[in-house]
Amino acid sequence: MTVTTDIISCQTEGDGDTVDLTSDLARSIAASGLKNGVATLFIGGSTAGITTVEFESGVIEDIKEVLETLAPSGRNWRHHQRWGDHNGHSHIRSALVGPSLSVPFVNGEPVLGMWQQVVLLDFDERPRSREVVVQLLGE
Amino acid sequence: MTVTTDIISCQTEGDGDTVDLTSDLARSIAASGLKNGVATLFIGGSTAGITTVEFESGVIEDIKEVLETLAPSGRNWRHHQRWGDHNGHSHIRSALVGPSLSVPFVNGEPVLGMWQQVVLLDFDERPRSREVVVQLLGE
Amino acid sequence: MTVTTDIISCQTEGDGDTVDLTSDLARSIAASGLKNGVATLFIGGSTAGITTVEFESGVIEDIKEVLETLAPSGRNWRHHQRWGDHNGHSHIRSALVGPSLSVPFVNGEPVLGMWQQVVLLDFDERPRSREVVVQLLGE
Repeated sequence: MTVTTDIISCQTEGDGDTVDLTSDLARSIAASGLKNGVATLFIGGSTAGITTVEFESGVIEDIKEVLETLAPSGRNWRHHQRWGDHNGHSHIRSALVGPSLSVPFVNGEPVLGMWQQVVLLDFDERPRSREVVVQLLGE
Repeated sequence: MTVTTDIISCQTEGDGDTVDLTSDLARSIAASGLKNGVATLFIGGSTAGITTVEFESGVIEDIKEVLETLAPSGRNWRHHQRWGDHNGHSHIRSALVGPSLSVPFVNGEPVLGMWQQVVLLDFDERPRSREVVVQLLGE
Repeated sequence: MTVTTDIISCQTEGDGDTVDLTSDLARSIAASGLKNGVATLFIGGSTAGITTVEFESGVIEDIKEVLETLAPSGRNWRHHQRWGDHNGHSHIRSALVGPSLSVPFVNGEPVLGMWQQVVLLDFDERPRSREVVVQLLGE
């Protein structure tokens, strides 16, 4: 078994912008030559998250609405008072969604459902350049 | 180190039905002959999730109640308007709980707490046949 | 590739107490001698969770506030009625945050952001002694 590291770079709009990483992930697995193993995706940073969704604009807006109710962007969070930042809501959403996702692959392909995409959710309040690490362990 | 793939198949009732996968996971690890490593469980699909709970009917109902408040099943979600579906709440809950779980195993056994079970939560609005992939990396 | 197991032991105050595990994780990786791979952290128990945050007291209090609204500590949860416990809210928060985290490491260091720390959140209603398993797979 071996390990290979890949990076997926992307530009986001922030504010819940949801980026479909599925084809990048498939490409990383194919390029590694590995057939069976696990891909661990990880976003370095505390204002974004990685999960899976049906990548459809209705679902994406629905998730934003629920997260806005759960951790409103307009509240005067303690983080703002202590750091002069305005992204307290982003930190909370990131901690709850989580920064990593582990996806098995079999015969060189990730075992995703037909209507399931791997996504980066950027909760920060401004556009960001992001780098997602893809660590592949397999054989 | 080697990798082995197993599938746990189950029938769910949907609507938050919570299936205890702990004994299936223990069986997969034992059958692999591996002693130390990590089991990655993954549900292919965007209306279910995998996590751990104390598998007790009170806790299970409590979780359903909180998720019903967070993402109500009766709301007219954008996903419904765009796709004619009725499971917008299922997609949101799935994205937040997440589709994968990584459980280390040592001496052939998963390192779970005494009151901690690995569960599939099926948030879809109807009964489903589900297949959870169990990818074992270890030696 | 090899696997090594480490344990991070800590004492918590419960009630959302947030423990920074980042330096312990870095030490585990360094001690293993592994250069590239994935660290899987797992908390055995159903009243705690592992995720990443910017480890800053404002953010930590903000997260507590959101989780208190989502799953209030004062509610008479079904879990209390059935088991005589008082930590129904702890179980719910644990299931949602999740008990595991997978962090890639490259050149002997975890790929965390500059303002991103790995944390244990102990949601139980009382102080606890906790053991986090760190399973390292790599080469």
